[in-house]
Amino acid sequence: MMRFRWTAWKALPPAEQDAAIAEAAALVAGMQHSAVYSLLGHKGDLMFVHFRRSFEELNQAEIALAKLRLSDFLEPTSSYLSMVELGLYDSTLDLYEGLAKREIAPYSAEWKQEVEAQLVRQRQAMAPRLWPAIPDRKYICFYPMDRRRGESVNWYRVPMAERKRMMHEHGMIGRRYADEVKQIITASIGFDDWEWGVDLFAEDPLVFKKLIYEMRFDEVSALYALFGTFYVGLRLQAAELGSLLKT
Amino acid sequence: MMRFRWTAWKALPPAEQDAAIAEAAALVAGMQHSAVYSLLGHKGDLMFVHFRRSFEELNQAEIALAKLRLSDFLEPTSSYLSMVELGLYDSTLDLYEGLAKREIAPYSAEWKQEVEAQLVRQRQAMAPRLWPAIPDRKYICFYPMDRRRGESVNWYRVPMAERKRMMHEHGMIGRRYADEVKQIITASIGFDDWEWGVDLFAEDPLVFKKLIYEMRFDEVSALYALFGTFYVGLRLQAAELGSLLKT
Amino acid sequence: MMRFRWTAWKALPPAEQDAAIAEAAALVAGMQHSAVYSLLGHKGDLMFVHFRRSFEELNQAEIALAKLRLSDFLEPTSSYLSMVELGLYDSTLDLYEGLAKREIAPYSAEWKQEVEAQLVRQRQAMAPRLWPAIPDRKYICFYPMDRRRGESVNWYRVPMAERKRMMHEHGMIGRRYADEVKQIITASIGFDDWEWGVDLFAEDPLVFKKLIYEMRFDEVSALYALFGTFYVGLRLQAAELGSLLKT
Amino acid sequence: MMRFRWTAWKALPPAEQDAAIAEAAALVAGMQHSAVYSLLGHKGDLMFVHFRRSFEELNQAEIALAKLRLSDFLEPTSSYLSMVELGLYDSTLDLYEGLAKREIAPYSAEWKQEVEAQLVRQRQAMAPRLWPAIPDRKYICFYPMDRRRGESVNWYRVPMAERKRMMHEHGMIGRRYADEVKQIITASIGFDDWEWGVDLFAEDPLVFKKLIYEMRFDEVSALYALFGTFYVGLRLQAAELGSLLKT
Amino acid sequence: MMRFRWTAWKALPPAEQDAAIAEAAALVAGMQHSAVYSLLGHKGDLMFVHFRRSFEELNQAEIALAKLRLSDFLEPTSSYLSMVELGLYDSTLDLYEGLAKREIAPYSAEWKQEVEAQLVRQRQAMAPRLWPAIPDRKYICFYPMDRRRGESVNWYRVPMAERKRMMHEHGMIGRRYADEVKQIITASIGFDDWEWGVDLFAEDPLVFKKLIYEMRFDEVSALYALFGTFYVGLRLQAAELGSLLKT
Repeated sequence: MMRFRWTAWKALPPAEQDAAIAEAAALVAGMQHSAVYSLLGHKGDLMFVHFRRSFEELNQAEIALAKLRLSDFLEPTSSYLSMVELGLYDSTLDLYEGLAKREIAPYSAEWKQEVEAQLVRQRQAMAPRLWPAIPDRKYICFYPMDRRRGESVNWYRVPMAERKRMMHEHGMIGRRYADEVKQIITASIGFDDWEWGVDLFAEDPLVFKKLIYEMRFDEVSALYALFGTFYVGLRLQAAELGSLLKT
Repeated sequence: MMRFRWTAWKALPPAEQDAAIAEAAALVAGMQHSAVYSLLGHKGDLMFVHFRRSFEELNQAEIALAKLRLSDFLEPTSSYLSMVELGLYDSTLDLYEGLAKREIAPYSAEWKQEVEAQLVRQRQAMAPRLWPAIPDRKYICFYPMDRRRGESVNWYRVPMAERKRMMHEHGMIGRRYADEVKQIITASIGFDDWEWGVDLFAEDPLVFKKLIYEMRFDEVSALYALFGTFYVGLRLQAAELGSLLKT
Repeated sequence: MMRFRWTAWKALPPAEQDAAIAEAAALVAGMQHSAVYSLLGHKGDLMFVHFRRSFEELNQAEIALAKLRLSDFLEPTSSYLSMVELGLYDSTLDLYEGLAKREIAPYSAEWKQEVEAQLVRQRQAMAPRLWPAIPDRKYICFYPMDRRRGESVNWYRVPMAERKRMMHEHGMIGRRYADEVKQIITASIGFDDWEWGVDLFAEDPLVFKKLIYEMRFDEVSALYALFGTFYVGLRLQAAELGSLLKT
Repeated sequence: MMRFRWTAWKALPPAEQDAAIAEAAALVAGMQHSAVYSLLGHKGDLMFVHFRRSFEELNQAEIALAKLRLSDFLEPTSSYLSMVELGLYDSTLDLYEGLAKREIAPYSAEWKQEVEAQLVRQRQAMAPRLWPAIPDRKYICFYPMDRRRGESVNWYRVPMAERKRMMHEHGMIGRRYADEVKQIITASIGFDDWEWGVDLFAEDPLVFKKLIYEMRFDEVSALYALFGTFYVGLRLQAAELGSLLKT
Repeated sequence: MMRFRWTAWKALPPAEQDAAIAEAAALVAGMQHSAVYSLLGHKGDLMFVHFRRSFEELNQAEIALAKLRLSDFLEPTSSYLSMVELGLYDSTLDLYEGLAKREIAPYSAEWKQEVEAQLVRQRQAMAPRLWPAIPDRKYICFYPMDRRRGESVNWYRVPMAERKRMMHEHGMIGRRYADEVKQIITASIGFDDWEWGVDLFAEDPLVFKKLIYEMRFDEVSALYALFGTFYVGLRLQAAELGSLLKT
């Protein structure tokens, strides 16, 4: 998320403004799996979303942006680093139970081989979902979240079958909204300050509220969800940067 | 909320100050459902309140302001994004009970159709309240709030009938103050960092304290309300910007 | 609270420094019920305290200060907005009990009339205490505080008679220090981010520690008091601004 | 604690750098009971420690520093205001018990007189410890702390004899480290945002970790201690300022 | 961690950029046990990691960097100060039990001598691990952490044998990842604001998530671990600074 230094920008001669916009628009237009949003409120003016296959490519995107002339007028206010996550509670629990029935000891060489093999199969099957295109919707809502680790209410002490059941019920709500909201869930344990990042994409922002409000009452969210900062933005096509920024 | 850069502003020649004030006053005067307040304390100097029918119109208002000459002297310190909310506990619970009596399964196609239809009817009936004019009172008080989601005291685990009862009692206090305070309650789940935003408008600011102090003891507030930052401001007419800012 | 921009200030020619000091000293000297303090530590260099009869007058004081030449070198770091509060637990409980004995229903027209009438009588009787002069002591200590609203320990769920008893015991400690410390308690529910603001004035700052340390063990403070940031300052007469700031 | 503005400083002509260093070194060298430390990490570059007999003298030290030419390159990042504290649990409890045996009512005129007299005797006896010289050790470690006031674990609800016992055990650990670490405990209730400030001085910083780690398991620390920010610095003699800052 | 001031940097003539890069690259290349990383996200652009044998050497590294021309464009955003820690639960508990069997009283002169002697033996045996080279992996992940000191769940009240058992189980997970992740655990009690600092080094950053996610469910982490800010960076060789920064 970036704040735009309007005051310094306005002092730039129009021709230099035009050149900076053109350079930035060309870079953004040429970036696959990237998008720009006009943020609402004081948390920033522009939000850049980059889906990349590696952190190295992500770092390159970040540096390419920093070298833009336009970036002289952009001040980073926030960011979030995470990886697209597949909800694998169902298949993982099935696998664990299958391995247990076959009396394969957890963390034995055979057990690890089977778990890794399933993960590889899943990642291959779901490769397009692991590196998705940016959904083509007018609005974005992003927020990070944690599972609660309280002194008495602690997600990480709940048996896996219980967690699976709650996640399943939670997923049912999301599925009811599938037409209206495209969700991309990302994992950030080890990468950023919250455990998960949630990206929602919709044509009508009212649906963000409806979905999240309804979810707030389901068991897993009511008991175990903690939420960070919410960001809401409107999609900007590269070609629209000019009309936003020209004064 | 914006801080005013007095030092830079004072360095501006009087004619340029006049032009910047005139431009800003014209924009604000021409904006329907917008108002400006002079904030008390260090949290900001000016607060702009915009009620709009869509986030897109809100974004346009924000950008139009940013392009003003006066904005070269305004630094955003905070903001809040939310939607006007109708308190529908009563009618929603009635509807749910009616549907249950008719043995319509929750989330079935028929159930969803009836719920959506009622929502549409209510939104039509209450359209003017969903996009209100800014109440014409001298003082504003704004603060965001959450319903508590503690490890043992958790609003989202309370049965709906209980919540309805507590909200009803809570509403009775507000109603006793209806002549003195105009309340506009907005929902921000999915939009900003708290769940609700409360705007109070009054001629005498003492009534903000009386109302909120009394409410602090009612059951739902005492047990379940968490409060964010409070902002208090005095209404500024567009034509008064000049007398505020001229040095 | 204001930080003083020493570096920029030192770059000002001595004659301009003198003029800025003279203008500021004249404004402050002419303000009744206002005082300036030299703050200790990094939380600010100067603290301005203004007691005013309305928020509008307070806002005018704030803007008059902002327009000073000296304010080009002052950066707001904090502030607190509140109203002087009278401790009325005793008389309020007596009144409520009297009304109950006379079988007047709470919130009935008659009940509200009696409560309001008593409030008006009290405010008239205590008018000088509601708009006090700034006590003429060398040191100030200011801090905001809340009554705890925890999941199990919650002031707003304690019966009024219990609260009255605890507040009475609490008040006894304050009374024992009355000669050494002048206390002005202000209420900020609905105005700022904590519920109360406490101003202590003394000739010897050691007494701030003695009073607050002793109070920390009384029941109401030990169980229910939460404290914000503490500010300690030395009174500056308007005429002393020059010796503080001249380099 | 101060951040040093290296970039602006480097732009200063060498002769002006020399003059600024000489002026600052002379002031610091002439200040009794003051010391400068080079801080590790981003929390600041220099830490100034001033022990003074009154807040007024402390304020004068602060302002004298602010008026230095070198201070144009110093930006305050933090500070802590407190008074040297004597651990008087033992003698206070003995006194209280003695007064109780003599049937002198708490807070009676006689009781207050005896308590105040003992305090005066102790302060006289310990005057050098109340206004100590800065220990001449290579490293400093400073941190503020609180006694916990939780909903169920609350220091201020523990009987005095229990507190005395725990403090005594706590003190025994400190005494075992007395050769390696010089401790100066200061009280800041009523002065700053934590209740206590701890200054440790040692030749080998490893001992800070050993002492504090061992203490973390003793009863009073494990249950009741809450810690703020830690600052670690290396002592700088006034004459060493030049070699630190010259580029 | 440092933010890079791109805007000011870009204004520097290319020859001065080259000279600044060459000077910085030479310093970094000449520093043993130091490394530079390109950070992902807004928390900083560059992370410098320095392993040193003393805080004095660390302070010298910090000051040498500050005096670089390149540092005019680097703004510190964060830092962490800690010492490499050896996990000595096993040997310490064995030693304590051995001393207890020999009826040597805890903290007696003999007891302290034996404990100190074992510590010295261990530090000698493990000297290379106490002052390690920076692992030569592409990615780094750093985060600080605490052991929980809650009102009911408190690590520092758990018997040592229990802690040893949990730490052993925790260590088994780390060992399973030993090929993929090099871990360096550092202790910061008494040095910085968290109790521990964790550095992970890997060729594939996905393994950071796998390791930390799996650990989050083990008993000691699930119940007692609290996590601070996460930083993820890509290793930069000194010679690569130019290609990163040249515009």
